Amino acid sequence: MFSQTTEYALRAMACLALAPDQLVPTNVLASMTKVPNNYLAKVLQQLAGARLINGRRGVGGGYRLARPSAQINLLDIINAVDMLKRIETCPLGLTTHGTNLCPLHRTMDRAAAVLIEVVRGVTLHDLVEDGGNRVRPLCETKTPVPLTLTLNKTPKRIGA
Amino acid sequence: MFSQTTEYALRAMACLALAPDQLVPTNVLASMTKVPNNYLAKVLQQLAGARLINGRRGVGGGYRLARPSAQINLLDIINAVDMLKRIETCPLGLTTHGTNLCPLHRTMDRAAAVLIEVVRGVTLHDLVEDGGNRVRPLCETKTPVPLTLTLNKTPKRIGA
Repeated sequence: MFSQTTEYALRAMACLALAPDQLVPTNVLASMTKVPNNYLAKVLQQLAGARLINGRRGVGGGYRLARPSAQINLLDIINAVDMLKRIETCPLGLTTHGTNLCPLHRTMDRAAAVLIEVVRGVTLHDLVEDGGNRVRPLCETKTPVPLTLTLNKTPKRIGA
Repeated sequence: MFSQTTEYALRAMACLALAPDQLVPTNVLASMTKVPNNYLAKVLQQLAGARLINGRRGVGGGYRLARPSAQINLLDIINAVDMLKRIETCPLGLTTHGTNLCPLHRTMDRAAAVLIEVVRGVTLHDLVEDGGNRVRPLCETKTPVPLTLTLNKTPKRIGA
């Protein structure tokens, strides 16, 4: 249903949401998310390209959310690395179908609709500020990510 | 959301449901579903491996559904070529999470649950016998697949 890349992107974004306003180094993100460094680097580039995160190179550099976690929903993240969308026209290009989908593609479109409804209705903020939940994403305990990073004086901006 | 392979498997199964009790040759299936021959051959092998279709080699050979279309739902087909399942334990293997999923994986599991509900609730029979619908899967018109195949006298069974 969700690709490996989507799973990794969601983990990385949840990790960044746990440390708001901090630049989190890629190697820390890789460790927290349990994603191979090279794979994660590509995922982060896609997220930066979609303007969901900002990055800075150099000592003290890393990535952080481009906007508050309450303004990023899971559909935003999924669509940054994959494509979750409704079926609007016949995927086979049948002329008599067009936008009047057959029962097969109407069912697939209905499945897409319910899936979109679920992931669009949950923000990153919802994930990390779920007070009633005993566990937090990526953490063994309820303790927030123990990051006390300071910015390098002259970091270079990376990503989009 | 659904992989290319899943889309192709669903098309092939819909095509076979349109011609019940007939052996449909792979090249006819490829033409109807607009799937490349080699790709389709692999998909058909997976469907046969999952015992959703039976195949026979030789002149007059091809594939047909292994059981009535009303007894095959779309989840059966998706799970024959892909994997659509609930998230039961923490994908990161975090010991304090276990079956008590964090909000991220609870959301992903909820998405899986609604998706499964949609596709499990629709059978192949529903797709091809939707009387009120103006269009039929894979067909430009409401006319059933014009196949009048006869079996070879000594076909060899293929697939599982």
